[in-house]
Amino acid sequence: MARHTYLTMKTPAEAREQWFSRIAELGMDTGEEAVPLAVALHRVLSRPVEALRSSPAFHGAAMDGIAVKAEDTFTASARRPLRLEIGRNAFWINTGHPLPEGCNAVVMVEHVNVEEGGAAVVIEKAAFPWQHVRKLGEDMVATEIILPPGVEIGPYELGALAAGGVTRPMVFRKPEVAIIPSGSEIVELEKAKEEDLRAGRALPEFNSIIFSAMIEEAGGHAHTCPIVPDEPELIREAIRSAVESGADLVVMNAGSSAGSHDYTADIIAGMGELLVHGIAVMPGKPTALGIVEAAGRKVPVIGTPGYPVSAIVAMEEFVLPLLARWLKRDVRRRESLSVVPCNPIPSRPGMEERVRVKLGLVDDTFFAVPLPRGAGTVTSLSRADAVIPVARDLEGLDAGKPVPAVLLRSRKEIEGALLAVGSHDNTLDLIDSMLRRTHPGFRLTSAHVGSLGGLLALRRGQCHLAGSHLLDEESGIYNRSAMREHLKGMPALLVQLVEREQGLMVLPGNPKNIVSFEDLCREDVRFINRQRGSGTRVLLDYELKKRGLSAVRVQGYRDEEYTHMNVAAAVLSGRADAGLGVRSAASALGLDFVSAGVEEYDLVIPCRYAEDARVQALLEVIRSEAFRSSVQAMGGYGTARTGEVIWEYDGK
Amino acid sequence: MARHTYLTMKTPAEAREQWFSRIAELGMDTGEEAVPLAVALHRVLSRPVEALRSSPAFHGAAMDGIAVKAEDTFTASARRPLRLEIGRNAFWINTGHPLPEGCNAVVMVEHVNVEEGGAAVVIEKAAFPWQHVRKLGEDMVATEIILPPGVEIGPYELGALAAGGVTRPMVFRKPEVAIIPSGSEIVELEKAKEEDLRAGRALPEFNSIIFSAMIEEAGGHAHTCPIVPDEPELIREAIRSAVESGADLVVMNAGSSAGSHDYTADIIAGMGELLVHGIAVMPGKPTALGIVEAAGRKVPVIGTPGYPVSAIVAMEEFVLPLLARWLKRDVRRRESLSVVPCNPIPSRPGMEERVRVKLGLVDDTFFAVPLPRGAGTVTSLSRADAVIPVARDLEGLDAGKPVPAVLLRSRKEIEGALLAVGSHDNTLDLIDSMLRRTHPGFRLTSAHVGSLGGLLALRRGQCHLAGSHLLDEESGIYNRSAMREHLKGMPALLVQLVEREQGLMVLPGNPKNIVSFEDLCREDVRFINRQRGSGTRVLLDYELKKRGLSAVRVQGYRDEEYTHMNVAAAVLSGRADAGLGVRSAASALGLDFVSAGVEEYDLVIPCRYAEDARVQALLEVIRSEAFRSSVQAMGGYGTARTGEVIWEYDGK
Repeated sequence: MARHTYLTMKTPAEAREQWFSRIAELGMDTGEEAVPLAVALHRVLSRPVEALRSSPAFHGAAMDGIAVKAEDTFTASARRPLRLEIGRNAFWINTGHPLPEGCNAVVMVEHVNVEEGGAAVVIEKAAFPWQHVRKLGEDMVATEIILPPGVEIGPYELGALAAGGVTRPMVFRKPEVAIIPSGSEIVELEKAKEEDLRAGRALPEFNSIIFSAMIEEAGGHAHTCPIVPDEPELIREAIRSAVESGADLVVMNAGSSAGSHDYTADIIAGMGELLVHGIAVMPGKPTALGIVEAAGRKVPVIGTPGYPVSAIVAMEEFVLPLLARWLKRDVRRRESLSVVPCNPIPSRPGMEERVRVKLGLVDDTFFAVPLPRGAGTVTSLSRADAVIPVARDLEGLDAGKPVPAVLLRSRKEIEGALLAVGSHDNTLDLIDSMLRRTHPGFRLTSAHVGSLGGLLALRRGQCHLAGSHLLDEESGIYNRSAMREHLKGMPALLVQLVEREQGLMVLPGNPKNIVSFEDLCREDVRFINRQRGSGTRVLLDYELKKRGLSAVRVQGYRDEEYTHMNVAAAVLSGRADAGLGVRSAASALGLDFVSAGVEEYDLVIPCRYAEDARVQALLEVIRSEAFRSSVQAMGGYGTARTGEVIWEYDGK
Repeated sequence: MARHTYLTMKTPAEAREQWFSRIAELGMDTGEEAVPLAVALHRVLSRPVEALRSSPAFHGAAMDGIAVKAEDTFTASARRPLRLEIGRNAFWINTGHPLPEGCNAVVMVEHVNVEEGGAAVVIEKAAFPWQHVRKLGEDMVATEIILPPGVEIGPYELGALAAGGVTRPMVFRKPEVAIIPSGSEIVELEKAKEEDLRAGRALPEFNSIIFSAMIEEAGGHAHTCPIVPDEPELIREAIRSAVESGADLVVMNAGSSAGSHDYTADIIAGMGELLVHGIAVMPGKPTALGIVEAAGRKVPVIGTPGYPVSAIVAMEEFVLPLLARWLKRDVRRRESLSVVPCNPIPSRPGMEERVRVKLGLVDDTFFAVPLPRGAGTVTSLSRADAVIPVARDLEGLDAGKPVPAVLLRSRKEIEGALLAVGSHDNTLDLIDSMLRRTHPGFRLTSAHVGSLGGLLALRRGQCHLAGSHLLDEESGIYNRSAMREHLKGMPALLVQLVEREQGLMVLPGNPKNIVSFEDLCREDVRFINRQRGSGTRVLLDYELKKRGLSAVRVQGYRDEEYTHMNVAAAVLSGRADAGLGVRSAASALGLDFVSAGVEEYDLVIPCRYAEDARVQALLEVIRSEAFRSSVQAMGGYGTARTGEVIWEYDGK
């Protein structure tokens, strides 16, 4: 099995510097062009703009009234009113119209008395020269610089250009970016067949959609080429053709790693210069940077990784800064904020890391909950509020110590979020959706660490509320004893969210005939468990203990997932034969469900947040009829006491 | 002359509330639609999005290596290496490919020793179940909510939608906005003839260009109808036709005031309901809001003022919030900042005012310099950094007292600006343009209040530097004595910017044969002066005094302009026969120029800013060869000592 090796790995900044220097050396620049105003919005002016005409172009009335020569009116006063003849020394005029020859002032219509018949008017006050006149050039005088270079054209700038008669301003040309998706299993997203995807025979191509949007946002123009299979000659041909068609930059997707079918780096080396292969950043490591030559043109090229999150990092580290450089503007700066990680964040020394996190402003601190770090987990970006960069020389970040984070959303949006840490339930997503609709600006951000983890996070003041369903084995009552144990000194409300049915999820038709907890100990049954500290794990242990069954007899007891849905997915895929979870997760994936009874799923809300506007909004949502009926439609839920404060914990 | 009257004037907030309530009562809403991902960027999701498929859709390799059943490897160790047969219990696999049936782990290629011939491999460490496997549903499980409603689709969200197989998400429909420009003198911008514009026979139409851009930025879709003359029946017909074509909102431009040719309010009343006419806001007063009915549809309508700045205020107060409401999102929030006005800002009680200002961060304070307040001055918006709203019950704002301002640019951009207050010279615009190009992030903001005003602003700590050319009548030396008088205790550098030729600007061919200052006292000569405190006014007074001429004999001595270019424009338009100013302004407008000698134009820079990076950058620019040659090309300038520190004032 032939494998390639990376060049010495550089940091993103070093790699960028090397690529950019070479691009500058070769004099690659996208130049400028003139564009009509109708399509000039958000383009960047490439040179100072001079007014081609003065605005206004004449002395005009700034008010409705009569135009006069001021000197004619100097004798007018209340005691000696002055009579003026219309058409001789007074002229009716509307706002915006040019002053008649010889006039240099306007008397407002409100100060004009019209004689019967209308042939003359009387005024009682002198006009001073240029009174109520918009003078020629008041806004701009021809030849004046009205806009400096480097300005992005917005609505106001369009107005200034138009007023100055500049109908085709010079702007930096949009860089043309060719995106070449490659891979023998890759199929167009719209053509992907479900059965091929499930069997892994086909992978849907959608990085090009993400790339195109990023390029358009950065002021470039993206063109996606047809998918190329993993064949070096075809890949070379695709690059050649993109360069011939005028691309200013070629973005290859996938094939930039060091595997046996990864040809990008070699191809770049063969068609020009391979400057960088392998970057000391996670995700994003398998990136290649270089220059290719075809059809007599030299063009920069980047090989981006196949996993979407890695690919996006490569775009953000290299492609967007290159476009900004060509367009002579700053890379869109994102706000930075000091945040406190809720958990330690380990990191590989020698690699910069980019950790996606959710944020919540609790009291005065922005707490960060890390999202899954897999390079394929695109929802870790769509769900993220911020990215924490971890420096190359660190082995990770400590929990509780402030670090800078780069915001992906506005600070205001983040401040409107309630941070729930704790047990996972699908109704939390429903609350978030309804909250956003009924209370724009507010939302619910939830992190799934299990019920116990939620109470501990509350204890540490790292979240606003926690979802919990911790059964007390002695009393059979939910949450109260756990709250007494873990939240001492923190008075809190226990608000029932739902009652929900827990049970064993099995394949449709229940082929292994799993009908009881006893069956989980069978040799032919493989179980998929939830993580320690989750209410469902507590429930399993309780049910096993009650029946005198030992956990060591359950195959797969140590195989853990973090959500009901992932347990359901594990069963559906055949990875396990059974898992314990809520009915709604089973129904969602069409699994059979062996009920094990109903449990209480509550929200724990410290009293000090009870009056918070966001908490009030959340309570309003869960007490609404719309919420109840949506929950009932999910199946497996009871809503008899939904929204009720079922216990007030006094902190003792 | 028939005139209309305004309805009782409401504040913008009251008027908006009334219009919106009626729109809500009538159930006007633009609804939702499904769009392909290729055009979904920046659209807003109208409902929660559930994943249609799991991602990944199968258990796949997360590393290159061999796929194995973990249980088969449990005995492997360095002491007891394990041999596996390719094709039987070990299978070569590349990252992203599906695990073969029965496998549940991957051993990285780096940890695999291949036997000669390649039929078998040896490993020295056990694999644990699901090691290096990207499990089915790791990113998302089918039916899970992957995106909540109200989210604007960005690149990351496109990735999440695509991964979930959602190729046509439901989004709020773009509101269709019909813009109807009206006015009998109005002509299309591209068709405007220079001679018609100069004679005031034609006014170029460009508000529709500004409006379209604002609507597109706010997520709507704008359509501009042909220009309609001021004839009620034609205007009614244009509205009818826009409503029939499916407009969700009609924006009329001009004709919404109370003049004799202003029909908009009456037409709205006749076609439906006129809810508001006249708003207590400056600029923006002549705005009308209502509902029109045509072709069986009721549609909201707004009549906007003709002056661009008023029209923009009407758009920002009413149209953009309506679009935001239809798209269920916040109006783009602009950052607010506490600023200190350099000058008092008078305001009309009973009217809210929107005062455009330039800002400069001097020491730790953002100082605000008001821009011209004319409703037709569109450059007052393109040049503005912020808008200060003045409340209805105030008579104005005091100089020196902090007030909130709404930023039009990023705080970072504003922080990069050097604020120059003082005398006006065209080379300041050139410095700004060059500074932006050579030092992205830096710029020069200049406010023109005359040389003396600049020194006083420096004295008060309200700017970073001042352009000055104050002649000492006794010594004939520039700036030094004025600095000693006004900057006592503030050591400063006097840096020569240019030498420049001052003289009398006259019409081409000098028809009145004005060749000396004596000629300014002739009865047939009308002068245009500069404002008090300007260096040019000082120069005039010096020259008159030297010759024993009295200012009262100069006709137009009290007629003042604030810049050389405006003086030149006054001469060109025939408003005056002569004005004193720099040669470059005369050349720019093709005027003749009677030289009165060369003066020194300097920059006064307090020593405490001398090491500021922005000041250093400015000095670099003015000391560059590129700057000198550009200045020389403007004519009338000498650059022999440009950039030289010609005097260090010790503050005594």
